[in-house]
Amino acid sequence: MAAKTLEDLFLHTVKDIYHGEMQILKALPKMAKEAESEELKAALHEHLTVTQGQVARLDKVFKMLGKPAKGEPCKAIEGLVAEGQEVIEETEKGPVRDAGIIAAAQAVEHYEIARYGTLCAWAEELGMEDAQELLEETLEEEKEADEKLNEVALEHVNEEAA
Amino acid sequence: MAAKTLEDLFLHTVKDIYHGEMQILKALPKMAKEAESEELKAALHEHLTVTQGQVARLDKVFKMLGKPAKGEPCKAIEGLVAEGQEVIEETEKGPVRDAGIIAAAQAVEHYEIARYGTLCAWAEELGMEDAQELLEETLEEEKEADEKLNEVALEHVNEEAA
Repeated sequence: MAAKTLEDLFLHTVKDIYHGEMQILKALPKMAKEAESEELKAALHEHLTVTQGQVARLDKVFKMLGKPAKGEPCKAIEGLVAEGQEVIEETEKGPVRDAGIIAAAQAVEHYEIARYGTLCAWAEELGMEDAQELLEETLEEEKEADEKLNEVALEHVNEEAA
Repeated sequence: MAAKTLEDLFLHTVKDIYHGEMQILKALPKMAKEAESEELKAALHEHLTVTQGQVARLDKVFKMLGKPAKGEPCKAIEGLVAEGQEVIEETEKGPVRDAGIIAAAQAVEHYEIARYGTLCAWAEELGMEDAQELLEETLEEEKEADEKLNEVALEHVNEEAA
């Protein structure tokens, strides 16, 4: 696609993060299954539910744009999800793997924080207040998910892994 | 590689971000060349200098670990850098491309914030105080780079792009 306007870039990035959320929906249950810590399993399952709500918000944003909800393959998120898979292959079940899963999940969260942060700024600039509001809700959830993972790492996993 | 201990994972992640910094050193001058905004060009050039210092810190961390400084291919950073290249291919020189370059650079910054954040926590858990201190300096610089890009977007680029 050739992007001539900020609105083109906005739509492109919404498609890209939509594809990302789909990859994450598939990856989260696998990561939870391979984790040992009950707190980590719970955090990943909780984020799965939150992610479903985020997809529903993106569906609404597509509607606001008058476009069909459709993802676009995105190498960054595919690489990030692949890293989570690799850490599972490279470790045995236990606290070291859990530490690796948390690290991989936080890298994904930060990607989303960057992307939704950008989308919020662009929505504001484009005068799309309703979309901006939805995207800001998701942005806050991603920041909370990152903090929750920090908590699990610091309170339950890292010490045992070391 | 099979990671049995948190120290194995730590070394693996240091190699991964070392490879990442090398990719970023190559990508930054290209992004600066393709940008139009003088403020954006300046921010990218400044971050190039900062990144060189971050590589020097990683060299020291490798020495502390008694290992040769060596990167390990990392799909996530390759995907992130590829996204920056794509946005350049998809846009013409001007404020829309600049907005896309900023978004791509911020996604890279957030990846680094996640990675260095993890490394700091692991270094602390492993009792590697000297490494932790170096990694924290870099983590702060990455956060500053992200904020600087926010500033450039909000003060110089987004409005013109919209």
